[in-house]
Amino acid sequence: MLNWKNLDATETFPKIEKAEKVELPKVMAGENGAKRVREYHIPMAEGLDYNYAAKTVDDRLIDLLQELADEQQLVDKYEYLLGGAIVNTGEKRHVLHQLTRGQLKGDVIVDGVNKRDFYKKQQDRIAEFANKVHAGEIVNEKGEKFNTVVQIGIGGSDLGPRALYIALENWAKANGTLKMKARFISNVDPDDAAAVLDQTDLAHALFIVVSKSGTTLETLTNETFVKNAMKKQGLDPVKHMLAVTSETSPLAKNEGYLAAFFMDDFIGGRYSSSSAVGGAVLSLAFGPEIFAQILDGMHEEDKVALNRDIRKNPELMDALIGVYERNVLDYRTTAVLPYSQALSRFPAHLQQLDMESNGKSVNRFGEPVSYKTGAIIWGEPGTNGQHSFFQLLHQGRDIIPMQFVGFRENQAGMDDVIEGSTSQKKLCANVCAQIVALACGRDNENPNKKFWGNRPSSIITGDQLTPGRLGALLAHFENKVMFQGFTWNINSFDQEGVQLGKILAKDVLAHNTEGALKEYSEILGI
Amino acid sequence: MLNWKNLDATETFPKIEKAEKVELPKVMAGENGAKRVREYHIPMAEGLDYNYAAKTVDDRLIDLLQELADEQQLVDKYEYLLGGAIVNTGEKRHVLHQLTRGQLKGDVIVDGVNKRDFYKKQQDRIAEFANKVHAGEIVNEKGEKFNTVVQIGIGGSDLGPRALYIALENWAKANGTLKMKARFISNVDPDDAAAVLDQTDLAHALFIVVSKSGTTLETLTNETFVKNAMKKQGLDPVKHMLAVTSETSPLAKNEGYLAAFFMDDFIGGRYSSSSAVGGAVLSLAFGPEIFAQILDGMHEEDKVALNRDIRKNPELMDALIGVYERNVLDYRTTAVLPYSQALSRFPAHLQQLDMESNGKSVNRFGEPVSYKTGAIIWGEPGTNGQHSFFQLLHQGRDIIPMQFVGFRENQAGMDDVIEGSTSQKKLCANVCAQIVALACGRDNENPNKKFWGNRPSSIITGDQLTPGRLGALLAHFENKVMFQGFTWNINSFDQEGVQLGKILAKDVLAHNTEGALKEYSEILGI
Repeated sequence: MLNWKNLDATETFPKIEKAEKVELPKVMAGENGAKRVREYHIPMAEGLDYNYAAKTVDDRLIDLLQELADEQQLVDKYEYLLGGAIVNTGEKRHVLHQLTRGQLKGDVIVDGVNKRDFYKKQQDRIAEFANKVHAGEIVNEKGEKFNTVVQIGIGGSDLGPRALYIALENWAKANGTLKMKARFISNVDPDDAAAVLDQTDLAHALFIVVSKSGTTLETLTNETFVKNAMKKQGLDPVKHMLAVTSETSPLAKNEGYLAAFFMDDFIGGRYSSSSAVGGAVLSLAFGPEIFAQILDGMHEEDKVALNRDIRKNPELMDALIGVYERNVLDYRTTAVLPYSQALSRFPAHLQQLDMESNGKSVNRFGEPVSYKTGAIIWGEPGTNGQHSFFQLLHQGRDIIPMQFVGFRENQAGMDDVIEGSTSQKKLCANVCAQIVALACGRDNENPNKKFWGNRPSSIITGDQLTPGRLGALLAHFENKVMFQGFTWNINSFDQEGVQLGKILAKDVLAHNTEGALKEYSEILGI
Repeated sequence: MLNWKNLDATETFPKIEKAEKVELPKVMAGENGAKRVREYHIPMAEGLDYNYAAKTVDDRLIDLLQELADEQQLVDKYEYLLGGAIVNTGEKRHVLHQLTRGQLKGDVIVDGVNKRDFYKKQQDRIAEFANKVHAGEIVNEKGEKFNTVVQIGIGGSDLGPRALYIALENWAKANGTLKMKARFISNVDPDDAAAVLDQTDLAHALFIVVSKSGTTLETLTNETFVKNAMKKQGLDPVKHMLAVTSETSPLAKNEGYLAAFFMDDFIGGRYSSSSAVGGAVLSLAFGPEIFAQILDGMHEEDKVALNRDIRKNPELMDALIGVYERNVLDYRTTAVLPYSQALSRFPAHLQQLDMESNGKSVNRFGEPVSYKTGAIIWGEPGTNGQHSFFQLLHQGRDIIPMQFVGFRENQAGMDDVIEGSTSQKKLCANVCAQIVALACGRDNENPNKKFWGNRPSSIITGDQLTPGRLGALLAHFENKVMFQGFTWNINSFDQEGVQLGKILAKDVLAHNTEGALKEYSEILGI
């Protein structure tokens, strides 16, 4: 029997609030610090490892977080979701993104359809299509092979697939599995599409129009924009366009597309990288077997997240440390800092994943909550960030929790020993140094050169960023966000906050405005 | 006579704290809202306009902000800086970046050198060099023209020039002034350099090594990495390498470079886009006359910032509204949201500019301050953000002040009327709609669909993003950050917070570690 309670209605939360605080400069010093680094870590799938030694917790606090996890029945609620319950209470929908990568509970049947079979079937259809494109069996008007795939989508149809593509592009080149170059058009700003088209050989490009509803303003506008450009070159758009959409959308069963692959209402945009939304573009770019490796990594991490012991469940640990930082320590943002250029757009994807999921003020029953929920997520890759905003992380007046990611090996396989070490070693040395500098600080009689420390961070480490590890990494954050939503008793799967802007934008375009909105419209020449 | 006072030592600040708060849903409604939009704006250089109608201020509060500007002598301190004073008290240096774009006070002579002449001379040397490259007078080993320029730099030597290049790349293409394609290598992650080299025709590429000290680890490592790649192709690095550095650095007067252009200690990295750091790469990419237009736009905005009347000085207004939001309303971040794909990396540059400048805990005399200073700056372009984190902006539990930017015309000149409007009109309609939705909110009996409003924003608008407007935009933010630093009585021009991490990273590479640092090093295989 599940009990859906607000965070401030739990018996455990007041205990956590009252618990003695951990001071990192104290606990991370000397042999005790070394012991923490050795002990405060949790193995993840694919050989990744989550280390939280530099977070402001200790055994006593972790016991309380475990108690909160148990009281809020976080893993039970995850199982409930996996079993096909209507967890998206606002929109009255199932939440099934984990089912795209494997089945962990019993069959989920919706309207007579076995949903695991449905998602698998789309993967198989995409794989078959992609293999034919790569083999030159599906070709352009002139019988020539396609060499580029362009995704037209926005939000979840853009950020996740784009971040994953960028994460693996160089790995795929180095491993000979880059089948087609991928590009992305998202913004309704016409300069976005114009720039992508300018560097794309249209005659040899496949375009994927991605919109669940088939009504997304930006995406349909960009689709028409692209089709117009094709027609100007005498190309037939039908020979170049695919759709990824729901079976009931206007884009489905539409003769304007070479093929359509399906998603459904039970996977939100921000969770759709493992559905056809990511599947089509990534299978075309890298080959279906690489996309399958991403899904396998996600599935393995989904399994790890089932563990009831917080010390063996990195998603649970990460989630509840985050709740502690947000609701007890009043930290308001988290910086995501991958020490990996391949993950340059990963923070932008996590930004959507986390902020759109948990940036809410009402609980799952629609009642306002009185405590803080989702925080701001932002970040850039290291070491670049060190030469940018790290000044504030070290010496600013607010404390910013940080999530580092680091790999022991690079992807491209090119590296040189310069001044006694490779670039990869320098990269890794820097992330180690930052964690310790931020946690421990260093005194100086000149306050301008003093580091207070006590800046908490965790790090996820691994050998090399491969498709499987990328999948595990992504599933870690998806499941972390889910556990936080359960802890706060909110619905992480709707997004009512985006509606009002859409309505008003339509009013502006229809010149149906008054007051301030009319004045702004005039300033911008609409 | 200048008086350097902490914010909490002023007579005005307590008055601002006690002043009645402005509720946006109230003041932005109806005819009063329209009146605010018409009246609460300030013309900027190049026809740009700063509109702050949707900020939580009114005439009474603006009068108090003026009083604070006067009491903290903000414009006097700006003039003091322009006159060549040692405003960077920590490092005991002049602060002269405005002098790269023009002279607003008397001559600044340092060690017998007229600094305006010095900066101008570098611009002229760069222009002469760039013109020769474009004319085919400076060529590669085989006598062939160069077609690409690659900047090797990190932090301020990367973010600003990169953001400016991206902002104008499509404009330059559309206007026939893209002379050479530019690329950027920054991260010490070897996958960054490997990826750029993979898509660069080395034989026809010029590389600019940018490091003021000539000792930046990442940059020197990447330089060697690039030179090794050249040698493998039988190319002579000397024929391909330029340096931008200080006259006393090891890169100056060094036979390993085709030419060296100079900066000095009086321009911090984050303020160096208008120096040779931005000048070399942008003059090579677009032609020196385009770079000169950027500088002209900056200079014009530098002039606007001299106005003592806050209602005529957009930098002063923006700065002090920001201080009010930070120190009275306790907002901790600002989202920068350009509705322009061309400005996709502008937020990353502003992140460094602002956070590295004002992420401090001590005042200019090195004494700890007890109030909040620089906030976190983050953001992504619209409309993309609307499909990502805007959920939290509208309905999250924290209020995030926003800085919008919007243009009436696109850059590429390609646009189509789709469903009755162009993409550009849709883009502009969306930014108008967001400002009003965020400020005014909308009630709904279902709290899940309710918008509380009172989310403050300002917007900078203009016709089209041109070099001059880009310059004015950048100078706006540089001067805003400076005024905030003066208001908080901190030194915005040093960055002691980045030192400890550098020291520890060297220890790690030398295997000179113990405790937690040693353990982390072992995890990452160093």
